[in-house]
Amino acid sequence: MKKRRSLELKPIGIIRSPYKDKDQVPNQGYRSKKIARIEVFKEFEEGLQDIEGFSHIVVIYWFHRSRGYHLSVKTPWDDIPHGLFATRSPHRPCPLGLTVAQLVAREGNVLKVKGLDAIDGTPVLDIKPYISSIDEQSAVKSGWLEGKLGKERS
Amino acid sequence: MKKRRSLELKPIGIIRSPYKDKDQVPNQGYRSKKIARIEVFKEFEEGLQDIEGFSHIVVIYWFHRSRGYHLSVKTPWDDIPHGLFATRSPHRPCPLGLTVAQLVAREGNVLKVKGLDAIDGTPVLDIKPYISSIDEQSAVKSGWLEGKLGKERS
Repeated sequence: MKKRRSLELKPIGIIRSPYKDKDQVPNQGYRSKKIARIEVFKEFEEGLQDIEGFSHIVVIYWFHRSRGYHLSVKTPWDDIPHGLFATRSPHRPCPLGLTVAQLVAREGNVLKVKGLDAIDGTPVLDIKPYISSIDEQSAVKSGWLEGKLGKERS
Repeated sequence: MKKRRSLELKPIGIIRSPYKDKDQVPNQGYRSKKIARIEVFKEFEEGLQDIEGFSHIVVIYWFHRSRGYHLSVKTPWDDIPHGLFATRSPHRPCPLGLTVAQLVAREGNVLKVKGLDAIDGTPVLDIKPYISSIDEQSAVKSGWLEGKLGKERS
């Protein structure tokens, strides 16, 4: 039995970014020192309590400019196409973006973060604390990206 | 202006897990050596090409048993309530689960993974390659969970 029920998600906030458009996001935007702001809608502000104790957060957002997808894709890092789920392309069946960002400061309902390479106006779906013992792995192999590390793009 | 457009997501697959119900998931399920299977629907199989080269994958899934949420929550790890977004509670405005799992094997449209503590029948929304240089962080501080590490729950 295949579960094909669909899930409807309403954003909890919005990203205010120095990148106004896709073309402005550098290939290694996740290494950028630029500050982005996550404006969590006021009605969810209470849910941010104690988040400022975490140095990093996982931000899940909606690639809202994404339209359609291909299951086999070429990336800037390789001449050979790869399966979509072996890439971080924004064009996916479920257009969900994921970034681990450094939490620089919290000001009420606003989180100031580094390393978030989403464009301005991106809807935020969820924020989770980044926890090393859960989220970090050892002995990691990076498949077709191996040897291209340092050049890869989220 | 608040963007309140909603996003409708259709699962790309389903998790077949040894945990049939929430009560069966151990508190540190992400450390479990048990194997779960991610059955990606056949129509998306082509998108898995080359994923077997990666030792770890990021799995985003739908907490499909989650009903409602509170913005301030108590967890098993602390007597004090914390903001929902400073916890990994499954009861969230957007009930999205996130696990970094070890990819043990791929057999066609099926991925065998370790460390995925979702229950049987959980709908999968996205699969991404885990890439150390993007997803790993240094100098991580874990806020209210500090000192409770090794006991925390995803």
